[in-house]
Amino acid sequence: MNYKKLGKILGKIMILEAILMLAPLAVSLIYRESFKNILAFVIPIILLAAIGFALQIPKPQRNNLYQKEGFALTALVWVVMALFGALPFVINGDIPNYADAFFEIMSGFTTTGASVVSDITELCRSTLFWRSFSHWIGGMGILVFVLIFIPESDDGSSMHLLRAESPGPQVGKIVSKMKVTTRILYLIYLGLTILEIVILMLDKPIAGYEKDQFFISLLTTFGSAGTGGFGVIPNSIELFNPFSQYAISIFLLLFGCNFSIYYLLLIGKLRDVFRSEEFRAYILSITAAVGVVFLSLVGRFEAFSQIYTTEEAFRHSLFQVASLITTTGYSTSDFNVWPMSARTTLVLVMFIGAMAGSTAGGIKTSRIVIAVKGAYVNVRKLINPRYVPKVKFEGKSLEEKTINDVFAFITLYFFLFLGVLFLLSFDPVNGQTVSVISDAGAYTVKHGFFSNFSSVLACISNIGPGFETVGPYANYSLFSAFSKVILSFTMLLGRLEILPVLLLFNRRTWKKI
Amino acid sequence: MNYKKLGKILGKIMILEAILMLAPLAVSLIYRESFKNILAFVIPIILLAAIGFALQIPKPQRNNLYQKEGFALTALVWVVMALFGALPFVINGDIPNYADAFFEIMSGFTTTGASVVSDITELCRSTLFWRSFSHWIGGMGILVFVLIFIPESDDGSSMHLLRAESPGPQVGKIVSKMKVTTRILYLIYLGLTILEIVILMLDKPIAGYEKDQFFISLLTTFGSAGTGGFGVIPNSIELFNPFSQYAISIFLLLFGCNFSIYYLLLIGKLRDVFRSEEFRAYILSITAAVGVVFLSLVGRFEAFSQIYTTEEAFRHSLFQVASLITTTGYSTSDFNVWPMSARTTLVLVMFIGAMAGSTAGGIKTSRIVIAVKGAYVNVRKLINPRYVPKVKFEGKSLEEKTINDVFAFITLYFFLFLGVLFLLSFDPVNGQTVSVISDAGAYTVKHGFFSNFSSVLACISNIGPGFETVGPYANYSLFSAFSKVILSFTMLLGRLEILPVLLLFNRRTWKKI
Repeated sequence: MNYKKLGKILGKIMILEAILMLAPLAVSLIYRESFKNILAFVIPIILLAAIGFALQIPKPQRNNLYQKEGFALTALVWVVMALFGALPFVINGDIPNYADAFFEIMSGFTTTGASVVSDITELCRSTLFWRSFSHWIGGMGILVFVLIFIPESDDGSSMHLLRAESPGPQVGKIVSKMKVTTRILYLIYLGLTILEIVILMLDKPIAGYEKDQFFISLLTTFGSAGTGGFGVIPNSIELFNPFSQYAISIFLLLFGCNFSIYYLLLIGKLRDVFRSEEFRAYILSITAAVGVVFLSLVGRFEAFSQIYTTEEAFRHSLFQVASLITTTGYSTSDFNVWPMSARTTLVLVMFIGAMAGSTAGGIKTSRIVIAVKGAYVNVRKLINPRYVPKVKFEGKSLEEKTINDVFAFITLYFFLFLGVLFLLSFDPVNGQTVSVISDAGAYTVKHGFFSNFSSVLACISNIGPGFETVGPYANYSLFSAFSKVILSFTMLLGRLEILPVLLLFNRRTWKKI
Repeated sequence: MNYKKLGKILGKIMILEAILMLAPLAVSLIYRESFKNILAFVIPIILLAAIGFALQIPKPQRNNLYQKEGFALTALVWVVMALFGALPFVINGDIPNYADAFFEIMSGFTTTGASVVSDITELCRSTLFWRSFSHWIGGMGILVFVLIFIPESDDGSSMHLLRAESPGPQVGKIVSKMKVTTRILYLIYLGLTILEIVILMLDKPIAGYEKDQFFISLLTTFGSAGTGGFGVIPNSIELFNPFSQYAISIFLLLFGCNFSIYYLLLIGKLRDVFRSEEFRAYILSITAAVGVVFLSLVGRFEAFSQIYTTEEAFRHSLFQVASLITTTGYSTSDFNVWPMSARTTLVLVMFIGAMAGSTAGGIKTSRIVIAVKGAYVNVRKLINPRYVPKVKFEGKSLEEKTINDVFAFITLYFFLFLGVLFLLSFDPVNGQTVSVISDAGAYTVKHGFFSNFSSVLACISNIGPGFETVGPYANYSLFSAFSKVILSFTMLLGRLEILPVLLLFNRRTWKKI
């Protein structure tokens, strides 16, 4: 482990975080918040900058990074970002408990959107901004961002960083130069972000929030772009006008696409987009899931407490599937009381997640497609042991190594899932009853198996809300500090796709070489 | 597909089933049951024998079976056995609905033990016998049984059959000759069965069932040996004396061992037994699970409605872990009301299952060990891409192919799990409230996510009872016929370890060659 080089890069990222914190500081100043609220950002900025610059002083013996160092660095970066990113909440008193604040900002950076805040109207604007902004930062990956600052000579290591960072089984370089790729991805991200803000501004303001349209549009867009999902006003997206709800659904689905698709669009290769198997599987999953949820809501073959018009049922189905398949976690209605078929469909899309190379979490559509093809290969081999697979994926023949990596990933995903589920079962919250007030009325719900199950799912897939006591109108505040730390690392496991985090726990990673 | 040969073997198995049905017929005659009850076995016996012999007439062009044919045959055998095995229940009126009867006997042959019978005191003795006997038959695998009847010349195909039949990732031949191996396994199975009956007979009779001690001991032993779990008297094993409850726990754990261990014991290689990694992992899982469940019960850090003495808590912990890790499904107390930590631990052991090469279902301990080692290999490869795995399992170096097969299996297991969960979510039972009367008192429970989740788990892992509405004091009768058929095939998927059943749905399997 090249500790000095590691420290140097970590230091640079800390300086970057200090710079990023200037944004919420500016918000705090613009809205003339109290001195304590301003200090809440000033102190961490000074701390980050001081440590960051200090780490630049030691000269590393070698300037490159090995693969393991790249992966370990990636995992560490997120931990360090969260450790310092939590400070403002503690200092300004919005989330006074440090474990809570760490959970909240880890949830932000990992674009999860799980919150411990019971009443967001009690948060100051700079806190709201920093929460949502952390989604936007986390969305494209802190390091894709940072790559721009790493000198060209580091080209080999940059590739390792991006590989650990980018969701999905493969990273294809869109164009040959790493930095150029990064800049193109980043420009697309920025472009889509601006477009969503503009479109949300075109709608009439939300009743009761007339003065805050820009602030709400900006923060809601941060949450959509990063597929994060922190709310800005109470009840997530429920109070938004139908136009905005439809618009956000569409943008969520757009941010769930592999970003290389936009590059293909930009250079006019429309046909290649529709030839992409992952894209077609993504569209198919969405259509099927919206269909099932919609039919469950209008069919009412299982009694539930909400009355929707057909349009509302369609809008909420579309929105909820878009929000959960992209692992965002926004909600327009209390899907926790929906029929079992709708809820189970939502659980499935929460497992699937959107496309690789997007800002979403979850297993990813491409892995599902590859695993299904892999299963077919296994059946064929049973029929004929000498069968040599000639299965293709995205036009290229699918190597057995890729299939095996996908199987390994999914197995680990479920094992870790069950492991975290086991740890949560010891939390004193189990068996407790929670009151929920939602658009479906007021009701109580007991923290049970499905609460734990959906907490793990919502964290490992970077979604945010789950069901029952962690449903869309509830939050994670009732969990113990121990569970919150466990769930914070579960989010990180999901965001970095498991292996880089596991690497941190292997002795060999830390050997000096 | 060599249809004539297939028909010939299927025919032989039908004749065998006719012979096996003579046992419940004898029970019916001994207990002087009504003419209808006797007819319930006579009619299927005649049918099976007639079709079975008719299928012997066509002469197959070739006498051997290819691998795919072996696998397809195995899957078909179970379906055919269940189709005819369901008839007695329908004819004698104990389970008048055919879908219910099919579910019940598939649950029997696959050693699942999930039941649709609400009140087993209403069943006649021959029905009770046939249910439990089907566990015993299913336990060692219908085909291991049948191998004895297949002429020596079929040696190649017998191996394919046993591979499809035997639980676990690998089948080692204990001794070189297939038929000898089979006979040794069968003798061990028979020996342990007799031993359990004798030990249960040594206990004083269950209060209120003084006259039926032999009948109850015999049927309970059938259910333990096959790790099936159908009850003989109400409330499963709750009313048994503590001595019997301890004894059954031990026998369940013994039947969960890889049977080759007994062969090693017989030839005096005690040291090899304890050197087995799977055996050690099995013992470790049991100890850890009993420990956690016991502490959850005595620690009472979560309130629950049962009061146990320390001895009772230990006995029920040991019994329930033994019953669920071996995927039997017997119960001595209502574990459905236990604290979440105890219930989640039970869910985990339900996933794990016992050792490969035993009569149990589930993922199997050896697969878990191999998957964990495989994960380690993957982390090591991240640290050093040129790392060549030198991981060992059971003293031999673990091939990457074995690891990949295990990953593929576990992935398929979870995918099918989620698929069946999705199908169950449409059942009208969702949202319905069910009354349960158990040793923990009378309570109501709503059919929710955990009910469906544990139904799938209990069927795919061949366990039987789950939680909530399918808990140990409830049953599967409320599911629709559609769900019952789906769950019947889920049991078969679990019993045959997925691939042979999937094979049935591939066009190429049925091609004439």
